[in-house]
Amino acid sequence: MLPFRRGMATMASLKKASKVVCIGRNYADHIKELSSARPKQPFFFLKPPTCVLLPGEGPVIRPRGVDLHYEVELALIIGKQVKDLDAADEKAAMDAVESYALSIDMTARNIQNEAKKKGLPWDIAKGFDTFLPMSKIIEKSAIPEPHNIELYLTVNNEVRQNDSTNLMLFQIPRMLSDISKVMTLEKGDIVITGTPKGVGPVVPGDIMRAGIKIDGKELEEAKIEVG
Amino acid sequence: MLPFRRGMATMASLKKASKVVCIGRNYADHIKELSSARPKQPFFFLKPPTCVLLPGEGPVIRPRGVDLHYEVELALIIGKQVKDLDAADEKAAMDAVESYALSIDMTARNIQNEAKKKGLPWDIAKGFDTFLPMSKIIEKSAIPEPHNIELYLTVNNEVRQNDSTNLMLFQIPRMLSDISKVMTLEKGDIVITGTPKGVGPVVPGDIMRAGIKIDGKELEEAKIEVG
Ligand SMILES: [Mg+2]
Ligand SMILES: [Mg+2]
Ligand SMILES: [Mg+2]
Repeated sequence: MLPFRRGMATMASLKKASKVVCIGRNYADHIKELSSARPKQPFFFLKPPTCVLLPGEGPVIRPRGVDLHYEVELALIIGKQVKDLDAADEKAAMDAVESYALSIDMTARNIQNEAKKKGLPWDIAKGFDTFLPMSKIIEKSAIPEPHNIELYLTVNNEVRQNDSTNLMLFQIPRMLSDISKVMTLEKGDIVITGTPKGVGPVVPGDIMRAGIKIDGKELEEAKIEVG
Repeated sequence: MLPFRRGMATMASLKKASKVVCIGRNYADHIKELSSARPKQPFFFLKPPTCVLLPGEGPVIRPRGVDLHYEVELALIIGKQVKDLDAADEKAAMDAVESYALSIDMTARNIQNEAKKKGLPWDIAKGFDTFLPMSKIIEKSAIPEPHNIELYLTVNNEVRQNDSTNLMLFQIPRMLSDISKVMTLEKGDIVITGTPKGVGPVVPGDIMRAGIKIDGKELEEAKIEVG
């Protein structure tokens, strides 16, 4: 067991997050691969907390008729209420981050594509039960430079995603600022920060493995392995 | 104080809902007024629980540059976990409803219209703090026929919305079935059921009043008055 202080997020508390806020299109090469427009400002959407899938709780459920895609993303666990944050106040933004996790933003890509075409909300495409596999909680001190770590995801041991968070278009202070000017972030909320290029489909039986490397070294608690 | 049994929803617990699920386009005349397509099945989106504005907590905050619209809607407070509900099982659906409330689904219409055009999520347009004014909790027994009550909303005492819930395209069992096949509903979750025609803008200083009439009689606990 990690030595969490009283009141800090625990694996069980992740499912009780009051919201999960997801940044879209935050890596240029991922925007290209989905033929999307590059946003002038961060945009975001919600996943319901019922998406959270803790280590050992898999597999991800693939609803019938769904083209299920993975998107590996760094998750921030928020440690205090954040409202109207100034984007220039990097210290306040980073102080609001209590810990990290790795996550996979599972997406029903065919449903999302249809929603985009019709101008409908994304919440169904993004919101099925089990659509957010997460790693263990990563203590903040284990990631001193969140904008300079490597995220990877393999499917059946083939590398599909592998990029540095230094490719983010909008960094953590800007994200938290923009979100908090719309919706107050609460302690325990989860923010997922967008996915690098390489997203693609998985089918039942496929095994996804994801992780974080820092200076080439694997971060043990960031590992996800899920069917 | 209403005599809530232990474990039942309270005003304070509404803000701790694990999710707020919102049905879109559920009244034909409202679909017409927004020039929207009529859905073949219910669709839905999320508002963050930070939207909830309890009686006396107003006003609704109008973010700069936002064309702020009201949408009066009947809210369901869910009393038990609901997963993969059969749409034909009306009894199970109605058993899952613990109580009701009236609500106003505040919407940044210009942001929503832009999102629709660009195929982007609705969560920002729908998700600003204070964007879900609610009435007191209405005991279930006070609304024996939820598909046959009158919802109304006035702005500065002019009637803007006034229609019966018998105009809903999809009724409660179908809504809860469709939602619960995507995301498990949890005790305390809030489901808002769509708005009748007559939506429109409000500006600072306007007073919205909304309520429910049953057989022409005002339901006191359903009243909302908010700036
Ligand atoms: Mg994503
Ligand atoms: Mg909660
Ligand atoms: Mg609405």
